[in-house]
Amino acid sequence: MTDTVSAEQERREADLVERVVRSFDGCSDPRLKQLMTSLVHHLHAFAREVRLTEEEWAKGIGFLTAAGHITDDKRQEFILLSDVLGLSMQTIGINNEAYGDATEATVFGPFFVENSPEIPLGGSISGGATGEPCWVEGTVSDSDGHPVAGARIEVWEADAEGLYDVQHDDGRTAARGHLFTDAEGRYSFWGVTPTPYPIPHDGPVGQMLAAVGRSPMRASHLHFMVSAAGQRTLVTHIFVRGDELLDSDTVFGVKSSLVKGFERQAPGSPTPDGYAVDGAWSRVSFDIVLAPAGT
Amino acid sequence: MTDTVSAEQERREADLVERVVRSFDGCSDPRLKQLMTSLVHHLHAFAREVRLTEEEWAKGIGFLTAAGHITDDKRQEFILLSDVLGLSMQTIGINNEAYGDATEATVFGPFFVENSPEIPLGGSISGGATGEPCWVEGTVSDSDGHPVAGARIEVWEADAEGLYDVQHDDGRTAARGHLFTDAEGRYSFWGVTPTPYPIPHDGPVGQMLAAVGRSPMRASHLHFMVSAAGQRTLVTHIFVRGDELLDSDTVFGVKSSLVKGFERQAPGSPTPDGYAVDGAWSRVSFDIVLAPAGT
Repeated sequence: MTDTVSAEQERREADLVERVVRSFDGCSDPRLKQLMTSLVHHLHAFAREVRLTEEEWAKGIGFLTAAGHITDDKRQEFILLSDVLGLSMQTIGINNEAYGDATEATVFGPFFVENSPEIPLGGSISGGATGEPCWVEGTVSDSDGHPVAGARIEVWEADAEGLYDVQHDDGRTAARGHLFTDAEGRYSFWGVTPTPYPIPHDGPVGQMLAAVGRSPMRASHLHFMVSAAGQRTLVTHIFVRGDELLDSDTVFGVKSSLVKGFERQAPGSPTPDGYAVDGAWSRVSFDIVLAPAGT
Repeated sequence: MTDTVSAEQERREADLVERVVRSFDGCSDPRLKQLMTSLVHHLHAFAREVRLTEEEWAKGIGFLTAAGHITDDKRQEFILLSDVLGLSMQTIGINNEAYGDATEATVFGPFFVENSPEIPLGGSISGGATGEPCWVEGTVSDSDGHPVAGARIEVWEADAEGLYDVQHDDGRTAARGHLFTDAEGRYSFWGVTPTPYPIPHDGPVGQMLAAVGRSPMRASHLHFMVSAAGQRTLVTHIFVRGDELLDSDTVFGVKSSLVKGFERQAPGSPTPDGYAVDGAWSRVSFDIVLAPAGT
């Protein structure tokens, strides 16, 4: 509220909020009623706090309309909107609460694909994707420190052009795959060193980012989804230490615990598995701790 | 917040909100920065308060997507959404603050049309619209009680079928018009007695209303827009005393000060201007007080 709102005006505004809340009295679904009531309280609190003008309200309607019209089965502007407002990350955090030293979750993103190729331990997910080779290794353990054998690890990432395979129009499968941890909970694979890329920014969300002076760039990252019996499924990324975008990732996906050293190796350096790399490569270690299922 | 959120979880959630807010630090438009900051605070507070699940988040994305896809140049689902959540009324109230005994504003609605026919004092706006004739009369005065001569009064309403002229597909102009107050600030015209009608409810907003057990009906009303030099333009309705929908108007447009007695007149009762009405008619009086411009 501003200081200039009269007591009568204040009464009228609060009364309206109560009338809207009471309109849900007949809702037979208690959870839906709770959601709508909270939504109405916060929506009205926003409008009252900023003293929303009718012109601003109309701009908001126009923004949502444009977001709806650019959205189709390949482009989801409302998810982008949720992402850049941090709502996606907040929802993930709420549903993956802190549990001991369990690895933190981050955004799922729109580029996961079911039925990725299975690769052996130490195999390559690249599938011909452009980019500098990257050796990724680590362990999966439970929150008591015991190794988790047979954990399924899905990994996926953009290529050196900043595009996921599904963003190319040729039907390729590249820079994605899945593998399973060994009896000691260990895993390793060859991927490509992550590079930064922008979220789609040729629509209303991109215009909003430009208007507020924000970049559409995501910090370089590699996606993981790790699942195992009795454990909470973990959806996360690892990020590249030293990436200048770590503090401005436009979807707020970065958590300091997920920033890892990707150590650059000179051309000709021997690889862990003797694989002959043509040029420079990098390596990173990521040890994963899963929380128990149901936490 | 629920009681079950740990201190570490609480810290992570609050930290994320602050990171999102700081992302607007570079915004060069102070008002836009204020709007985005407040929006982010309230959006995150909502998600944290209800502990929004990922499934509920996905349903929300789906709802907005469906609303976007049904919206075109004739149908505006986002305005309907704003209306049924009371946000439209709240915005109108914020922008038309209480001022002495100035007549209260209410929702504009989607059915106003520019360049309505001008009618003389005592003329008819019906243009062939179905419905029981209704004699409407009153005065326009300023907040000091002085009559406002030459005030422009736009009036529009649905017909007995619950449809505005523009909802018929035949290009008709009916049940709308404008007139000007006389030297004593008086006005009068023939319209039709208002009847209730539903907002468009065959889309996601209608589904939401059904899910929460709310009716899509609007209370019977007659729209006014009154403008005069030096006065704040008033957009309002009058409602019909005794209408059973007064307490459940689905867009929260009803204010008790706007509920008027529409007195039913038996067939054959003499009319104020000697106009020969075929059957029953009604009459209503509505004295309008304008706030000064800039208030």
